[in-house]
Amino acid sequence: MLDYKLLEALTAVVECGGFERAGAALGLSQSAVSQRIRSLEVRLGQPVLVRAPALAPTPVGRRLINHARRVQLLERDLGQALPTLASEAPRLRIAVNADSLATWWAEAVGALCREEGVVLDLVVEDQDVGLRRLRDGDVAACLCASPRPIAGARALPLGQMSYLPLATPGYRRRHFPAGPSAEAFRHAPAIVFGPHDQLQHRFLADCGYHGPFPYHLCPASEGFVRLAQAGMGYGMIPRMQVAGPLARGELVSIAPGQALAVPLYWHRWRHSGRLIERLTDALGAVSLA
Amino acid sequence: MLDYKLLEALTAVVECGGFERAGAALGLSQSAVSQRIRSLEVRLGQPVLVRAPALAPTPVGRRLINHARRVQLLERDLGQALPTLASEAPRLRIAVNADSLATWWAEAVGALCREEGVVLDLVVEDQDVGLRRLRDGDVAACLCASPRPIAGARALPLGQMSYLPLATPGYRRRHFPAGPSAEAFRHAPAIVFGPHDQLQHRFLADCGYHGPFPYHLCPASEGFVRLAQAGMGYGMIPRMQVAGPLARGELVSIAPGQALAVPLYWHRWRHSGRLIERLTDALGAVSLA
Repeated sequence: MLDYKLLEALTAVVECGGFERAGAALGLSQSAVSQRIRSLEVRLGQPVLVRAPALAPTPVGRRLINHARRVQLLERDLGQALPTLASEAPRLRIAVNADSLATWWAEAVGALCREEGVVLDLVVEDQDVGLRRLRDGDVAACLCASPRPIAGARALPLGQMSYLPLATPGYRRRHFPAGPSAEAFRHAPAIVFGPHDQLQHRFLADCGYHGPFPYHLCPASEGFVRLAQAGMGYGMIPRMQVAGPLARGELVSIAPGQALAVPLYWHRWRHSGRLIERLTDALGAVSLA
Repeated sequence: MLDYKLLEALTAVVECGGFERAGAALGLSQSAVSQRIRSLEVRLGQPVLVRAPALAPTPVGRRLINHARRVQLLERDLGQALPTLASEAPRLRIAVNADSLATWWAEAVGALCREEGVVLDLVVEDQDVGLRRLRDGDVAACLCASPRPIAGARALPLGQMSYLPLATPGYRRRHFPAGPSAEAFRHAPAIVFGPHDQLQHRFLADCGYHGPFPYHLCPASEGFVRLAQAGMGYGMIPRMQVAGPLARGELVSIAPGQALAVPLYWHRWRHSGRLIERLTDALGAVSLA
């Protein structure tokens, strides 16, 4: 079997952000930690860490760390049967889409994380990138809009998030005085999450518009809402993220009646241990509206 | 001089996310757009776009796009003197730290963007990465905590954001019943923005604690606050981001009296045109508290 002392040192260096802190966390000297990393690199014949511009794992290092974490999860199950073996809090590395993280995610998993003493290592990724990280062994599970499970994994449907085309009343008066039209869409600045965000294009296609339009790019959920609230553009925003501003009339739909539903799926490996199963149960109980 | 028709095609392909849409935006056929991209690549002797896994500029392509945008900014200044030359809305590509984007940024720049019809291409980066993007010509300006201007650029101090160590009252009762102590810090889960986030370490050092501690990693501002509100951990949160929850007592400090001030600086090239100057004036008028 692998020498897990070496993997533990690698994991600690990355999690603590340095050799000295990793040594402190493991109760080792800094040079003992360096020695373990060197042993690992000699065995592998390639580096597991890049030192510049910032300390970070190589792709191979990342896979080793994830493997170590999966082994820790299995150890934790064992530790419940044999309590004298039990060790520190396990880390779960999970890819989550930005809008879920900005809305319902924490409330859905909070109680379980508190009970189990688990800490999360969250990665913000949408769609295919999250699934690729799961396939590459970089994350233990992934929450995204893609329904197709990858080989060896399972996908649980969680329901749909509803998105509305929202702006301030002042913005709507200025840019859509007569409601949506091709002429208005051509000139009204939109807000788009990223260059590969399809929501805005889907909305415009549903309205029968396929031409160009000016847009702000804002790859952060809360920042996106702030741009809309500052009257800088209209954008597709999850209804649940802006319940307050909608109720107070601070944000309004520029195309009343139009909404897009984005389904969400929870992807995880088969046989990934009791903790992921419990997390799956907690997520299965969520009702998205 | 460069053939700007080629750069315009490249910019359109990246902004529109495809050759067909770029053609529609430019009033060209898809094959005419492909032809221009090929011409550019032949002249350069290297690719400007990668096609898989997703369409994206190469580092060289990215520099060309940014150059084209800077030229567009200068053209815009010219267009104000010679109105018959004026063309469409300029794009400004700017790196902004996540917490500013989640709080005061949109309100500070909204009026100016509306007046000038400018659209923003926001990149979420903290600290050194944002400055490196400025130096590499990938962004036109950068908002971050680093005071030192890079060569050829200037840095305007904007004031400081105040961060407090916050959690729910229930979390504080459970993990800090007798206030902060080394024993409590060793076991109480924290929330950290990313592996290179120094705020949590600075806070613990200010409290005289230098040992290990469990923590959630959450690289998204709003998700970070949600984890704290779900009672999953305590974390350093900008006071201005949670004024409501603080006033209602939903979040409380685990170490009353302790705060960290993070200064913010606005970095931009000298001579970057009237629009960046106006943006600089708007940011200079912000008062962070």
